[in-house]
Amino acid sequence: MTSLDSIKSVIEPDLVRLNQMIRAQLLSDNSLMDTVIESYLTTKGKQIRPIIVMLCARMYGDITDCVLNAAAAIELLHNASLIHDDVVDDSKLRRGTPTINALWDNRIAVLVGDFFVSTALQRAIATDHTAIISIIGRLGKLLSLGEIDQIYNARTHTVTEEAYFKIIDFKTASLFVACAQAGCHAVGADEQGIAKLSEVARLLGLCFQIRDDIFDYYEPDKVGKPTGNDLREGKITLPLLHVLLDESLPQHDEMLQLARTEELDDASIAILQAYARDNGGIDYAYATMDAMRREAAEVVATLPDPAKAEPLMQIFDYIIERDL
Amino acid sequence: MTSLDSIKSVIEPDLVRLNQMIRAQLLSDNSLMDTVIESYLTTKGKQIRPIIVMLCARMYGDITDCVLNAAAAIELLHNASLIHDDVVDDSKLRRGTPTINALWDNRIAVLVGDFFVSTALQRAIATDHTAIISIIGRLGKLLSLGEIDQIYNARTHTVTEEAYFKIIDFKTASLFVACAQAGCHAVGADEQGIAKLSEVARLLGLCFQIRDDIFDYYEPDKVGKPTGNDLREGKITLPLLHVLLDESLPQHDEMLQLARTEELDDASIAILQAYARDNGGIDYAYATMDAMRREAAEVVATLPDPAKAEPLMQIFDYIIERDL
Repeated sequence: MTSLDSIKSVIEPDLVRLNQMIRAQLLSDNSLMDTVIESYLTTKGKQIRPIIVMLCARMYGDITDCVLNAAAAIELLHNASLIHDDVVDDSKLRRGTPTINALWDNRIAVLVGDFFVSTALQRAIATDHTAIISIIGRLGKLLSLGEIDQIYNARTHTVTEEAYFKIIDFKTASLFVACAQAGCHAVGADEQGIAKLSEVARLLGLCFQIRDDIFDYYEPDKVGKPTGNDLREGKITLPLLHVLLDESLPQHDEMLQLARTEELDDASIAILQAYARDNGGIDYAYATMDAMRREAAEVVATLPDPAKAEPLMQIFDYIIERDL
Repeated sequence: MTSLDSIKSVIEPDLVRLNQMIRAQLLSDNSLMDTVIESYLTTKGKQIRPIIVMLCARMYGDITDCVLNAAAAIELLHNASLIHDDVVDDSKLRRGTPTINALWDNRIAVLVGDFFVSTALQRAIATDHTAIISIIGRLGKLLSLGEIDQIYNARTHTVTEEAYFKIIDFKTASLFVACAQAGCHAVGADEQGIAKLSEVARLLGLCFQIRDDIFDYYEPDKVGKPTGNDLREGKITLPLLHVLLDESLPQHDEMLQLARTEELDDASIAILQAYARDNGGIDYAYATMDAMRREAAEVVATLPDPAKAEPLMQIFDYIIERDL
């Protein structure tokens, strides 16, 4: 099991500086906002995205203030979208602690999310790199379009691998690519270097989302959190998608029809979860991630100093093996 | 009665170009997003903010693409905050037509708001002016802080003119100031020119919010829309604030206590509205706006070409006299 701590160890002091910077930028003279933000900062999550910014920057230079500003911008933008997601999903818990909308209310949570977005933008501006500022602007658009595409496909019951990969490219991989691009631009990497690390980051992002989607097919008591949420919202992700695309499977037509039913009940969700598991849907998703990791390794092998990319490759292991 | 149309007439072709630009930037290859945005664009509101950007730019130069990009950025950011406001307030109507959250749902509305924010950012970046990009970044922060300040003061029942003016400075005037600054920067105005038009715009913004706040004290059947909403949320605005600060008024202590009651009922709201009206609270708010208009006129008189600022001064008349 690859722990995130061992990956972090190579950039530990930089991560400390990053979190000091994020805290300083979020504090205001508004005591309500500060209380909200303090409680939020204590549960700050895994910070995989800023870690990727720094690990990419490290491939071609030092972790300067410019790199930290870029990393802070992306982390803040990511957190803004989580805060807004919790409002729209009416989620009461994230990372085991109450969400801002649960602790306070929707109004405060939307505003705190907006505050995070503008703080992100200010960090991007502080890099003084037009390329990095543009990356952050484009990213915001891709993230919201990806989420809306997903809702649209769920409503229209689109079942194709192409649509699935387009969505996870937009809503998840685009953020990981932005991490690589911003980190590389901040240290003045050349175009070829940027392109290679962007591809590695894209594969990381796709794996991250596929792994996340797999959780939805577990039996609830196996993971200690509710599963089947995607199916409940009409979202058909890779494990089920794969088996539904195989017309030779028993009960295929019946299951496809069930998957396209509006507002699935718990019993139907359990049937679809089991159908995906029993017919190799989860195995296929794992095989897809393994192929992506190999593809990334091939790209890394062409870098000037492949050994230095070791922590980046370890993130694949961490993502694929993680329990939650 | 000064109509907005007569003010707009001097920049009519530029406004057409602006709206073409906004439309083009918002369209995507996502049909759901496009449907949402098309219906939104048909009810696009008064566009006072981009008009101010253009009228300010016009004082010192031509209305170039750079000016239009700056105006589009601010208009999009403003609309993003309206879309998010409608979600948090659960408003079903805006400008007489159904809101995005009413037509679709909260999830789509939050995402469309986020999409507007990133489109705004991209327009700011397209100006290629660091100053304008920074203005947009700072603005987002001020807007969310202003809203949160207001919620905080409503909860703590703060009753001071200082707190009131700080809030309306942040949540409304800051946007108007950003309009002047962005418009001026886009045409390369000098620091003194920027400072003067920023002050005029700040006064415009304060008047705009004071006028908006006055509506809340009307009897509901007089304006054709519900009133007392601010009071219902615990927000004490200028007309009531002024009378509550005058300890010599009859029933003063009783009314102050009532105003600080949690979750006011309709009867109490009607009592407070009448108390503000009957004791000159609304007259005081009008007098405050008049003083601001005179102050702005004095600043305008020191500009190189005061006559050219006539449309800008007419916005004061429009704002102060407007019915809705």
